[in-house]
Amino acid sequence: VASGEFARIDRFLAAFRAAGGRTSGGSVVLGPGDDAAVYASPSPTALTTDALFEEVHFRRVWTTPEDLGHKALAVNVSDLAAMGARPTSFLCALGVPDDVDDAYLERLARGMAPLAARVGCVLAGGNFSRASELSLTITALGAIEHRTLRRDTARVGDAVILVGDLGEAAAELRLLMAGTSLPPGHSALNRPQPLVREGLAAARVASCAIDVSDGLVQDLGHVARASGVRLVIDDRRVPRSARFDRLTQGLDAVVKVSLVYAGGEDYALAVIGDGRRADDFGGVIIGRVEEGRGVEVEGLPPGTRLAGHDHFAR
Amino acid sequence: VASGEFARIDRFLAAFRAAGGRTSGGSVVLGPGDDAAVYASPSPTALTTDALFEEVHFRRVWTTPEDLGHKALAVNVSDLAAMGARPTSFLCALGVPDDVDDAYLERLARGMAPLAARVGCVLAGGNFSRASELSLTITALGAIEHRTLRRDTARVGDAVILVGDLGEAAAELRLLMAGTSLPPGHSALNRPQPLVREGLAAARVASCAIDVSDGLVQDLGHVARASGVRLVIDDRRVPRSARFDRLTQGLDAVVKVSLVYAGGEDYALAVIGDGRRADDFGGVIIGRVEEGRGVEVEGLPPGTRLAGHDHFAR
Repeated sequence: VASGEFARIDRFLAAFRAAGGRTSGGSVVLGPGDDAAVYASPSPTALTTDALFEEVHFRRVWTTPEDLGHKALAVNVSDLAAMGARPTSFLCALGVPDDVDDAYLERLARGMAPLAARVGCVLAGGNFSRASELSLTITALGAIEHRTLRRDTARVGDAVILVGDLGEAAAELRLLMAGTSLPPGHSALNRPQPLVREGLAAARVASCAIDVSDGLVQDLGHVARASGVRLVIDDRRVPRSARFDRLTQGLDAVVKVSLVYAGGEDYALAVIGDGRRADDFGGVIIGRVEEGRGVEVEGLPPGTRLAGHDHFAR
Repeated sequence: VASGEFARIDRFLAAFRAAGGRTSGGSVVLGPGDDAAVYASPSPTALTTDALFEEVHFRRVWTTPEDLGHKALAVNVSDLAAMGARPTSFLCALGVPDDVDDAYLERLARGMAPLAARVGCVLAGGNFSRASELSLTITALGAIEHRTLRRDTARVGDAVILVGDLGEAAAELRLLMAGTSLPPGHSALNRPQPLVREGLAAARVASCAIDVSDGLVQDLGHVARASGVRLVIDDRRVPRSARFDRLTQGLDAVVKVSLVYAGGEDYALAVIGDGRRADDFGGVIIGRVEEGRGVEVEGLPPGTRLAGHDHFAR
């Protein structure tokens, strides 16, 4: 920690609090300002870390700092939701290049605060470091009060249940990369909404779920592998949102399918369990669990290629 | 998470386990491989995050990957030690540039594992991301089983007690920056040893401590501010190690003093409390707490400037 850093941290925390965020209370016994925070919870704690790096996960010209702050927290909270955990707190480590000023950092904080407040997440601490590119590495904690939603508990006969929309974020990214600006309305790419309530409700009636963030097929592949089963999706049952249709107007059917199944950044939930309980958590049955291995999508146009999103691929 | 990433993560975890590290057990109910880890502890949990960025905190030519892995974990564990916490687990988020290969990442893991095993820290999860420069952002958790060592509990009449050595890391960095290689022996810069046992022992008899990582004077400044007291250090009582003397042979007295008090990266502990208990945790009394504010060092050569380490300064 550097002395210039302390003033930055103070300003960041002040902006976060001014925008409605909390830095103590709940499970956070001791918040920012000591060598470590102190956390206490009677429940088991879900614990996840996820990072956004400039040029890999975002471009500063394509996103406002408020959206970026929101998203960095949202992608972590989505992992908690997929465990059936109630978000309680987070730590925020920033890599800050020389051309990012305090005003930008304060806007990041102001973008995080409303989501943090809405899902009940207290900013317990963090770290600022000088870096050559902007990065946000968040660690989020959540309380597991019902079942833990795991990847290795899918059973033959279960239904595959989708909560949330697929393909919108990937369709938006496609527009941006083509130099087109986004249409008005809620941006799935810049403002993903983690499905916390849905995850908590699912944990009351199911024990298997995954965060859909790298494309449905790739993510369900983890469930298939961990559980030793085969997942079969029926394309006719996979909903397309009105916004997805608008974003993809005029695109080839094969491209649309690849955005839906392999686009990434959906931050939807796939819950695997009793299909009769899908309504309890706002889910739609899109497939079933069979004996075997891997993931199959029935009803796709011939020649469709469904790889997951891979930011290491070049 | 990207598909190329999964294979990398598997190799990283395998290397970590092969070198004696654990990825489950203890407080870690569910380790890597799901959307989040699951952690359960009856004690309050100390929670900290600290990052090492290439060119800011290290240069690949000056450090082996094993040393770098060790250090990234060590700086976090040192924060836990300064809270009086027993390390239990950690998450490891890596930013990986294209010219860092799997062999390098496996060597990072092998560097982390012995320290993790020695202090009882389980690797619960993490994240790999493509990035333009190498960075290691670790979040570490520890169990607080005695008192919490805070910064705001120093009282007038307390002693300032130092555990560990000052100035060696800064003296080593000075040599490296001058193009000189390090003398043989244990490198404080590359292999900091977090004082876990000492922190735990201190938490039985004291309630105030800080991790000395940015220079003693700057770090004690946080204690003075948080506690509303003045800390007076007696330079004659501050030990210099034999290695420090060797590393700084021929240097001006003012330079030596600045390395000791403002060099940074010492990962020593400053405990503030009853001086009669200093032996309980291997400490040496170096000063006292008075009414007032700020930090003073008595007995320094005139003209000595004692700023803390500031990696944002240019």
